[in-house]
Amino acid sequence: MTAGQPLRTDPPPQQRRHTPPALHPAVVPSYPPPESDNDESWVWSQIKAEARRDADAEPALASFLYATVLSHPSLERSLSFHLANKLCSSTLLSTLLYDLFVGSLAAHPTIRAAAVADLLAVRSRDPACAGFSHCLLNYKGFLAVQAHRVAHVLWAQNRRALALALQSRVAEVFAVDIHPAAAIGKGILLDHATGVVIGETAVVGDNVSILHHVTLGGTGKAVGDRHPKIGDGVLIGAGATILGNVLIGAGAKIGAGSVVLIDVPPRSTAVGNPARLIGGKKGDDMPGESMDHTSFIQQWSDYTI
Amino acid sequence: MTAGQPLRTDPPPQQRRHTPPALHPAVVPSYPPPESDNDESWVWSQIKAEARRDADAEPALASFLYATVLSHPSLERSLSFHLANKLCSSTLLSTLLYDLFVGSLAAHPTIRAAAVADLLAVRSRDPACAGFSHCLLNYKGFLAVQAHRVAHVLWAQNRRALALALQSRVAEVFAVDIHPAAAIGKGILLDHATGVVIGETAVVGDNVSILHHVTLGGTGKAVGDRHPKIGDGVLIGAGATILGNVLIGAGAKIGAGSVVLIDVPPRSTAVGNPARLIGGKKGDDMPGESMDHTSFIQQWSDYTI
Amino acid sequence: MTAGQPLRTDPPPQQRRHTPPALHPAVVPSYPPPESDNDESWVWSQIKAEARRDADAEPALASFLYATVLSHPSLERSLSFHLANKLCSSTLLSTLLYDLFVGSLAAHPTIRAAAVADLLAVRSRDPACAGFSHCLLNYKGFLAVQAHRVAHVLWAQNRRALALALQSRVAEVFAVDIHPAAAIGKGILLDHATGVVIGETAVVGDNVSILHHVTLGGTGKAVGDRHPKIGDGVLIGAGATILGNVLIGAGAKIGAGSVVLIDVPPRSTAVGNPARLIGGKKGDDMPGESMDHTSFIQQWSDYTI
Amino acid sequence: MTAGQPLRTDPPPQQRRHTPPALHPAVVPSYPPPESDNDESWVWSQIKAEARRDADAEPALASFLYATVLSHPSLERSLSFHLANKLCSSTLLSTLLYDLFVGSLAAHPTIRAAAVADLLAVRSRDPACAGFSHCLLNYKGFLAVQAHRVAHVLWAQNRRALALALQSRVAEVFAVDIHPAAAIGKGILLDHATGVVIGETAVVGDNVSILHHVTLGGTGKAVGDRHPKIGDGVLIGAGATILGNVLIGAGAKIGAGSVVLIDVPPRSTAVGNPARLIGGKKGDDMPGESMDHTSFIQQWSDYTI
Amino acid sequence: MTAGQPLRTDPPPQQRRHTPPALHPAVVPSYPPPESDNDESWVWSQIKAEARRDADAEPALASFLYATVLSHPSLERSLSFHLANKLCSSTLLSTLLYDLFVGSLAAHPTIRAAAVADLLAVRSRDPACAGFSHCLLNYKGFLAVQAHRVAHVLWAQNRRALALALQSRVAEVFAVDIHPAAAIGKGILLDHATGVVIGETAVVGDNVSILHHVTLGGTGKAVGDRHPKIGDGVLIGAGATILGNVLIGAGAKIGAGSVVLIDVPPRSTAVGNPARLIGGKKGDDMPGESMDHTSFIQQWSDYTI
Amino acid sequence: MTAGQPLRTDPPPQQRRHTPPALHPAVVPSYPPPESDNDESWVWSQIKAEARRDADAEPALASFLYATVLSHPSLERSLSFHLANKLCSSTLLSTLLYDLFVGSLAAHPTIRAAAVADLLAVRSRDPACAGFSHCLLNYKGFLAVQAHRVAHVLWAQNRRALALALQSRVAEVFAVDIHPAAAIGKGILLDHATGVVIGETAVVGDNVSILHHVTLGGTGKAVGDRHPKIGDGVLIGAGATILGNVLIGAGAKIGAGSVVLIDVPPRSTAVGNPARLIGGKKGDDMPGESMDHTSFIQQWSDYTI
Repeated sequence: MTAGQPLRTDPPPQQRRHTPPALHPAVVPSYPPPESDNDESWVWSQIKAEARRDADAEPALASFLYATVLSHPSLERSLSFHLANKLCSSTLLSTLLYDLFVGSLAAHPTIRAAAVADLLAVRSRDPACAGFSHCLLNYKGFLAVQAHRVAHVLWAQNRRALALALQSRVAEVFAVDIHPAAAIGKGILLDHATGVVIGETAVVGDNVSILHHVTLGGTGKAVGDRHPKIGDGVLIGAGATILGNVLIGAGAKIGAGSVVLIDVPPRSTAVGNPARLIGGKKGDDMPGESMDHTSFIQQWSDYTI
Repeated sequence: MTAGQPLRTDPPPQQRRHTPPALHPAVVPSYPPPESDNDESWVWSQIKAEARRDADAEPALASFLYATVLSHPSLERSLSFHLANKLCSSTLLSTLLYDLFVGSLAAHPTIRAAAVADLLAVRSRDPACAGFSHCLLNYKGFLAVQAHRVAHVLWAQNRRALALALQSRVAEVFAVDIHPAAAIGKGILLDHATGVVIGETAVVGDNVSILHHVTLGGTGKAVGDRHPKIGDGVLIGAGATILGNVLIGAGAKIGAGSVVLIDVPPRSTAVGNPARLIGGKKGDDMPGESMDHTSFIQQWSDYTI
Repeated sequence: MTAGQPLRTDPPPQQRRHTPPALHPAVVPSYPPPESDNDESWVWSQIKAEARRDADAEPALASFLYATVLSHPSLERSLSFHLANKLCSSTLLSTLLYDLFVGSLAAHPTIRAAAVADLLAVRSRDPACAGFSHCLLNYKGFLAVQAHRVAHVLWAQNRRALALALQSRVAEVFAVDIHPAAAIGKGILLDHATGVVIGETAVVGDNVSILHHVTLGGTGKAVGDRHPKIGDGVLIGAGATILGNVLIGAGAKIGAGSVVLIDVPPRSTAVGNPARLIGGKKGDDMPGESMDHTSFIQQWSDYTI
Repeated sequence: MTAGQPLRTDPPPQQRRHTPPALHPAVVPSYPPPESDNDESWVWSQIKAEARRDADAEPALASFLYATVLSHPSLERSLSFHLANKLCSSTLLSTLLYDLFVGSLAAHPTIRAAAVADLLAVRSRDPACAGFSHCLLNYKGFLAVQAHRVAHVLWAQNRRALALALQSRVAEVFAVDIHPAAAIGKGILLDHATGVVIGETAVVGDNVSILHHVTLGGTGKAVGDRHPKIGDGVLIGAGATILGNVLIGAGAKIGAGSVVLIDVPPRSTAVGNPARLIGGKKGDDMPGESMDHTSFIQQWSDYTI
Repeated sequence: MTAGQPLRTDPPPQQRRHTPPALHPAVVPSYPPPESDNDESWVWSQIKAEARRDADAEPALASFLYATVLSHPSLERSLSFHLANKLCSSTLLSTLLYDLFVGSLAAHPTIRAAAVADLLAVRSRDPACAGFSHCLLNYKGFLAVQAHRVAHVLWAQNRRALALALQSRVAEVFAVDIHPAAAIGKGILLDHATGVVIGETAVVGDNVSILHHVTLGGTGKAVGDRHPKIGDGVLIGAGATILGNVLIGAGAKIGAGSVVLIDVPPRSTAVGNPARLIGGKKGDDMPGESMDHTSFIQQWSDYTI
Repeated sequence: MTAGQPLRTDPPPQQRRHTPPALHPAVVPSYPPPESDNDESWVWSQIKAEARRDADAEPALASFLYATVLSHPSLERSLSFHLANKLCSSTLLSTLLYDLFVGSLAAHPTIRAAAVADLLAVRSRDPACAGFSHCLLNYKGFLAVQAHRVAHVLWAQNRRALALALQSRVAEVFAVDIHPAAAIGKGILLDHATGVVIGETAVVGDNVSILHHVTLGGTGKAVGDRHPKIGDGVLIGAGATILGNVLIGAGAKIGAGSVVLIDVPPRSTAVGNPARLIGGKKGDDMPGESMDHTSFIQQWSDYTI
């Protein structure tokens, strides 16, 4: 969970693996293990190596890869450049956004650390992820979350009009609508990401995986705390709708298309519309990391075709 | 309902409140009440006051706020400018669209009045709305509906190719796909808006609130009248799918994720996939205005986790 | 099904009708039947005739129509121009993409043939389709599929970084996320298309119709073959989620909002969350072509409001 | 001369010929004579006829011609569109400039009349001019003068910052630098136009032709009236430099490359660096209209190679 | 001279040297001599080697160099891409221009050969030229001449509106105004190029060097043949103005700032305003190639400060 | 002169006046004298005050003024933003240029100091200058010189390809062509600036004023030192051409249109083509600062019209 927002006293999820995760062998050549404990510099060196390999192999893409990655001295600059050019418009110029992102990432190392944790999470969890650079350059969920973190800082600094303008651009460009006030942890995977909506008072823990079309919405009744609280290591399937100030316990799994309106205990599985619990196995597995979407099928008793 | 399309003889919904709605106090300072009955001029003066306040507080956003709001003499010009710059492309230039919007808004005061009603609706219903200018500038649902109203006029004038091109740009830029022939009332809130689809023969009444991912779709069987008719004051939750020429009665509430294929009586609540009725309270409340999403939980008998 | 990927031995779907389908008479004037068997040249001549008619009737749109259609010598050039200008960004210039599309379409006539089959399919199945040019210019589902086919060829040529960059642009611009490795047949209709997600090892047969928000997703468990296989002539309703390496038999129908995790037999109908079979009529009808969304209502026994 | 700035009591230049001037027969087909005395509507109808002819003959240019000419209801709108799209920048949006030009041209019919006089002048005087539309669309001297006229009005209204911003854009885009305070008559031809500089207190009469690289500059000594006054019908050759508050009499001719620092009498010819008078023939000819550049060669006594 | 336009029977200028010219050693490393007689492929290989060297040394420029040079399979494609992106506007899209340039260069090998001759000429003559890629990418004179050659072909094909539109864009973007009908030889250097004006009936021979602000203008008297004819190997200094249908003989030199109104014999030197002959040495030297601007100083008898 | 390039032992020019120069009273309100000796902060505060005044008075320009001036914390950021957005292209993105300018201005305070000296010079010398912000935003000569200074640093750092690319963009956008190797002093006014060309080995001292179309060109003979050396306080009139490695002494004046091929002594005046000396008054006046263009007229004995 984000600092200052203790949600529960669950045991911590298993440590994120520092060793480079197994990759799709056809796409990404294996690299030597990192020589340093510094994840950011290691990830950045991987991104540059991947981009250089791709630029060499594909001249048509080399200009793009130099502009977005290879001309930059750091992940922070590369990400700021890429976000600025994605999110700019005729009335919000790329240079203004670039300044904003560079300044925010420099002032808030935790945003950078969270971005690195996200990169490691995506590569580790998504078998379709072809490398760190693939995520950095192409995953609109990843980019939306990074822009959100900057908007979240602006919101905290009471720069709300700018934060809302940034939210709006992210909603238009990536179809991901995260209120700047929402608190999002690290190690997040928004897979595919189209249509994700996360409301103002939502809290999302660490190592959570959220598929596309997922809503963490309000109940519409009140101005106050009205959105879901998602524990660490939760997996939320495609199209799931979670409404109201409900608690999804750490390690829980929400089935695709579920509609959840009340609390879900830790490490349990909720499916259906309206959602009901099925016998989640109470093991160590954190579905937000293992991405096990469908193990509950046989437990879903009336699931018969 | 839009003129000329009488749908039912339900009692009219409660009057829209002219007094400025209670706002999120941390974000929007209170303004004196309007001195005139003219909603449009009052809303426009509020928008300018908000934009001026934000421009003063946030120099990085001032250029954006002057370009979109503060340099314009009227809401009509401001909205036309903003839509034109959002919806333009390399083959549909902003000046062409600007001309189209300015001309349409000038010729059709009802479009302007509906836009004002929408602004009042959003600010009144959405607790995350930080002000009229927030809605005007940042709500893609609001902007999509305004562009639709212009496309609807073009369609009625038999300028169908242009209307369809406009629909297409809105679908790409805002991920909101409303057929130009669909009739949409006033006082509409499309909250978050991503993925909303409204078909050719659909009719949407006044003071309706529609969340994201909602479909008012056809049955695919026929060319004729084949899409839903939504009464006044209806609330349709996130991800709900309503298919076919069915009637959703005034003041009804459709739960998130529901799949509705047959009529829903006025002031009732339908939930589930397939949707079934639960005991809606037959009070005066119009859920499209009160935004009460989840009051039915306890009535949803098998909803147990 | 795409060549080399035999899925089943079902009888072939009924032949696509070469006679021009019945059109929306208010919008599209009738044209003489094609004088040649060459679908591509006939469709192209229709597109040009429609564009010329619309340019004459609507000067405001004429520049757009000349740029996208009337200045081009062939469907292949027109489509390449249109896609390049839609998908370009500040770091992926339109000229680069144009080169890529022109080259791919010239080298792979099957991509062109599939595009023509898609155009015929959309016009035949979607009553809201106002003509071939409407589909070519305005249907983001159509455009996304055409761009996917080029990305699919790049993937097959091991030009994976470029294929993934193309996928990413399509996901941002059209909100349609199709992995380049996915195999998509011909005669495809992605209606409305917002939020469609099709995973890496998915296979989609010929003459399939897929509504918006449909997911053909993975189970998250493994790197290997993990996505659905969709037979010919299948119709998948809005918001349906199909997960895992399951087989949806030819001519099956998946109801809107369904969540499908196991195989569905040919010509059957699956509805609900979780989906269950209802008594599909085992006739000749191919729902992917007839677009019969709702015939199952009366068979859905507990569907009562 | 412009109204309110009487310069001299010379006899008026010969009336501008209303009959359509002889054209380059290979390029421009002859049109019937105007049926009305209204030059503006006649010229506009000619421009549209030319643009339609060119759009039909050259599909590659049709989109440009529809965007700039054929989609507009009037010369005023067409010119405003064209100037706005030429002069816009990332910080001065085309919609803002379009509004400015449309508003200025509507409020000041004399600007429109002067534009028409310029179009007639260019077509009549420049043998390389292929038609009115050629001038409207392609002559940067013509476009620079029209933008200047709007800037001049802004200057007179004390909107100086905007006037100077417009001057700056014209100087960058067209390489023509005319101070907004300078008074320019009508029937002006700036041929080729690159590098023309006209200072703050310069006055240019009617029916003047000015070639490229011509400077009407100041002496640098003082803040007050310090730039040349150019009479009606003057012809100023390429690269001529006229400095200081000197008077170039009506019908005078300034040779290419001349440096003129003192007054030049009406109907005389000045050549050389420093310029000296040669025996100009005192006839009726107005060189600004006849464009006779070189008749003085034989009179330039020491001109021998 | 260009084919079909024999101007004189002067002896041919000395053959262009095929051996790579001496380069600025500080900037351009020496390359091995070409192994083939094919200038185009050799020059293209040099350009790629230079661009690769610069991309390696300067990451900030690598994206630019890959986009403009290194991603292209041929000089023809690289040049077309670069010109299209330089000359495009909001109403003339880059893809349209790219198509036009690629098509013209493919259909007219002489345009490509002339471009190669120009590249060799610039590198050989201009001591400030840092390499072939420097000229290709950065010399607006070079780029203007290449675009002119395409416009010239269009003019010859009677596609005059398009040719004039191209001329206009070149005049705006590069401040070089060459009428499409003008015939320009090969081995041309337009150094600095700002303000060069070349009229409709002008002819420029091979191996001519023209500095900035040079005018080859008309006399204004007539529609017919009215512009200068420049022989092979001529050098025209900065700011020189040559007016009328005069003949500048092969190997002549025109001093900077000269105004030339009558013929200049071959291998002679004309200086001053009005120009007069000074004793040019009648040697083999071709000043258009040797770029000897100032050898005449001591011969200019009254030149004393 | 720039450091490290001692040119002569002339007495230093009179000190630049720190008191704010007299301004055009109609345009610029008087401000209190600077309270600090720090020119940069004083000039920046003036620029902001002017921009705020203009933004208040002219809403149509406010967005531009906030984007370019009022949203920035320093002159350095404002200038970098403005240059980046002026000089960017589709292949050289504004964010890249912005980074380059911000980094260069931060690392080289002398560039910033020279920019301030230029601003003071322009406002002091040019009676048409309406204020510091007018110069910063609108003077293409000022902007070209600032970009040159960055290119000059890059050249000195042996980053020549990038320096030449920057030169090329300046030449295209501002029509000012200054080789990156040229050494330019401070307190420079390039008035109007179109067509200025300054060669590779040129040196320009401090407090020099150069009008448009001025060439400091080479002789074409050699690779080495071949361009003019301009002393402090020199004034060079419009269209003057100075060729070769000649020395223009401090305080000299070169008449408009002059062609200068040999040295000009300090404080003397050269006019004509070819230039000759006229009796310059040997006073204290520095014409580069006093801008006295035409005092020599009466001394130019044969100047008679």
